[in-house]
Amino acid sequence: MVSKNQIKLITGLQQKKFRKEHQLFFAEGKKVIQELIHSDFFLEYLFTTTAVFPDVNPKKIINISESELKKISALTTPNDCLAVFRKPEPKKINETGLIVTLDDIRDPGNLGTIIRLCDWFGISELVCSEETVDIYNPKVVQATMGSIARVNVSYVNLEKFISETNLPVFGTFMDGDNIYKTELPKEGIIVMGNEANGISSQIEQTVNHRLAIPRFGNLQLTESLNVATATAIILSEFKRS
Amino acid sequence: MVSKNQIKLITGLQQKKFRKEHQLFFAEGKKVIQELIHSDFFLEYLFTTTAVFPDVNPKKIINISESELKKISALTTPNDCLAVFRKPEPKKINETGLIVTLDDIRDPGNLGTIIRLCDWFGISELVCSEETVDIYNPKVVQATMGSIARVNVSYVNLEKFISETNLPVFGTFMDGDNIYKTELPKEGIIVMGNEANGISSQIEQTVNHRLAIPRFGNLQLTESLNVATATAIILSEFKRS
Repeated sequence: MVSKNQIKLITGLQQKKFRKEHQLFFAEGKKVIQELIHSDFFLEYLFTTTAVFPDVNPKKIINISESELKKISALTTPNDCLAVFRKPEPKKINETGLIVTLDDIRDPGNLGTIIRLCDWFGISELVCSEETVDIYNPKVVQATMGSIARVNVSYVNLEKFISETNLPVFGTFMDGDNIYKTELPKEGIIVMGNEANGISSQIEQTVNHRLAIPRFGNLQLTESLNVATATAIILSEFKRS
Repeated sequence: MVSKNQIKLITGLQQKKFRKEHQLFFAEGKKVIQELIHSDFFLEYLFTTTAVFPDVNPKKIINISESELKKISALTTPNDCLAVFRKPEPKKINETGLIVTLDDIRDPGNLGTIIRLCDWFGISELVCSEETVDIYNPKVVQATMGSIARVNVSYVNLEKFISETNLPVFGTFMDGDNIYKTELPKEGIIVMGNEANGISSQIEQTVNHRLAIPRFGNLQLTESLNVATATAIILSEFKRS
């Protein structure tokens, strides 16, 4: 059974301020929950209708009905389980290799997809501006499909972080060098900009290598790529060589 | 003002069966609406709170309040306009160049993003299995950001379509050839599979060039790329050479 207080707590965790206050977040679905359990994440409770978790301390498992799960889920069509985890302590940023930085990404689906891309391309550091959507937003956690456990996501003053680094800084702009014809290094910072406004002018000043993804469609009309698909193309270019 | 019958009609258009019955669909937001108006799409009505459309026949414009827009919008945070269009007649598939085919894509956001990618990479034909989500689903229309006006999307028996073509057929699989090291032609069919199950076994039999996008992360754990980001990487590889 799920108590009234638990419903209040968990639905509250959809909001950033309550995640901060309680230092908790939740994840849904067996795959994501299992990946978090097998990583460093500390499990508080696990609510389940039918999913079975033999590795989990039975004291932490609470069997609930589907209608109870609906009351705590953030999904329109809930899975069969939901788990509440403690937010881990932030880890230090390891400033080697390729680092992806996000300048004010607002859409949870985009952040989740970018975390999954970093994981695929073996990039372990994702550094976000403080305005970027929170990694523990339930929609982000869901979109990562578990990759959240393998990418170190940090929130910093991005302008300060980038201007203090010794690594080369790459950003994509309309007038940049054709990414397909540029030799790309194994180390560096890749900046991805906001969905509507791109890279902000303060951050643009820290970029010392301007790149462009060439367009092949009607150049007058086609406006831009979605930030997650642009990230996919850029990471593929950095890694393919 | 928006009448009760209009509210009933437009909210009905969120469902495929009513879009089919009325041969109508709707789009929201000035950018998308304008791109559709400037293309071949026939406008039925345009509801607006503050957006101005000087090119549109004023008889078709209906000024409404924000609370009225909320009643007909499919968005949680509505824009300032919504337009109802007639569904155009299906166009013949032009079987030259690169053609993207979708084997049962279910997520509207993924289909919309893939249409936008086709537009960016100058691919004008997108051929979908009959089970693929409907292009006139409001979430698809929204995610295309207007690219829907420039890519010809057809729904066919995909197995029949592919087996009758003379073009080479490409699909991505775990055991395929490294896409970064394969010479890719200017003509051919690229098959993208379902979000959960990948390419179906019937369609897999029609593929004569098996490709793979190499993974750089932990090979045991990282499972797959989202289908839209995989499409981005594949199209980028076909077009970059």
